[in-house]
Amino acid sequence: MVSENAQPAFVLVRPQMGENIGASARAMLNFGLEQMRVVGPRDGWPSEAAFAMASGAGRVLDAAQLSDDLAGALEDRTFTFATTARPRDLTKTVYTPEQAMKEARVRIALGQKVAVMFGPERAGLENADIAQANAIISVPVNPEYASLNLAQCVLLCAYEWMRATSEAEPVVDVLAGTEMANGQEIEHLAKHYEERMEEAGFFYPEHKIESMKVNLRNMWSRMPLTRADVQMLHGMMRQIVRWKDRS
Amino acid sequence: MVSENAQPAFVLVRPQMGENIGASARAMLNFGLEQMRVVGPRDGWPSEAAFAMASGAGRVLDAAQLSDDLAGALEDRTFTFATTARPRDLTKTVYTPEQAMKEARVRIALGQKVAVMFGPERAGLENADIAQANAIISVPVNPEYASLNLAQCVLLCAYEWMRATSEAEPVVDVLAGTEMANGQEIEHLAKHYEERMEEAGFFYPEHKIESMKVNLRNMWSRMPLTRADVQMLHGMMRQIVRWKDRS
Repeated sequence: MVSENAQPAFVLVRPQMGENIGASARAMLNFGLEQMRVVGPRDGWPSEAAFAMASGAGRVLDAAQLSDDLAGALEDRTFTFATTARPRDLTKTVYTPEQAMKEARVRIALGQKVAVMFGPERAGLENADIAQANAIISVPVNPEYASLNLAQCVLLCAYEWMRATSEAEPVVDVLAGTEMANGQEIEHLAKHYEERMEEAGFFYPEHKIESMKVNLRNMWSRMPLTRADVQMLHGMMRQIVRWKDRS
Repeated sequence: MVSENAQPAFVLVRPQMGENIGASARAMLNFGLEQMRVVGPRDGWPSEAAFAMASGAGRVLDAAQLSDDLAGALEDRTFTFATTARPRDLTKTVYTPEQAMKEARVRIALGQKVAVMFGPERAGLENADIAQANAIISVPVNPEYASLNLAQCVLLCAYEWMRATSEAEPVVDVLAGTEMANGQEIEHLAKHYEERMEEAGFFYPEHKIESMKVNLRNMWSRMPLTRADVQMLHGMMRQIVRWKDRS
């Protein structure tokens, strides 16, 4: 269990379907978030449908705090984001999920207690709810087709939380852990193929020989060849020569 | 309708539930993606369940290309990502969704045709599928709880596609202006080599045959092969066979 204030609380405001609460719990736990709060769920609490959907993330629901009203859910929070799809008359800073979760990380590091609230499935948050938030999160969707559901909106925010907090973005791991062939090994491979292809009569006609050899040599060096690749390629050529010799 | 190659094709490989195909279409269209391909859907095609779930994103399903096998779905593609949760023995570069979609944007700007493939709900992609990809996408999830479903994985990749395309960044690539081989060309090359090496008796002993074939297939997809490379490699093998036949 993560310390209660080391991560934002995700507050589901008047959720309708238990399934969506369960799916939100799963979406959260995928990215390490365990602080859920539920405000006035339509079908009561605890919700069997939520537990059925949560498979494996039931502990998020077990630990969820239930409140009758939004003010109760937010009373210990020092900074709250409201997620909303539509532009509002309310004057508040609008963040993307990425910006918001970076901001949340900074505020939490400073000792603040952060919440992110999500509206009911059909209508979303009302202006009265949003008025209780410090800032807005709006997911940049296709203006011609915006149909993110509750758990998807939770998923994107949770994903951005993990991105904001993973110190080293997993590096474009160019074949990490794999032994790459070194220059000498590539050179041997290139020679091996050039010699056999020479014997096979591949380099022809005369005036193209040089450029054909350069192209072949260049291909080997351009490839990200592992040691295992090089061994396989040697083995293939040796087997081909045996095949020829058997003919 | 967006131009067909201005965005990556999302390829659903052997999806099981029509509902998940529909939810994937919605997830895509939320972020402006309209190129779906479906390989061997379990419950046939077109799928009523998919259309019922797609509400409003039905045109993505209408335009979806159906294929019997993965090779058919990838034949015009020049760069393919495979999404997978589990680490694999296959040697390929692993990207986060963010890195992958940035890479996709760059490649598409250079005229390449990009695909992202997603496995079936229960088991995910098989090694034989992944061997046909150039690189892997892995979503950085909570190591103690990873339960992203198909449409959620599609959602995160689509979201990162929109993020990658909404800020303009300079584009640099070593292979700019070079015609890269597409999926069909790589597939033909792989088949050509596999068949000849089979005749040559390379795949031995019996219990290693499958893994030897997957490793060889995987090597071709991992390489940044140009069209000229592929022609040279075909030419080499054809010449080797002539050499053998002359013996």
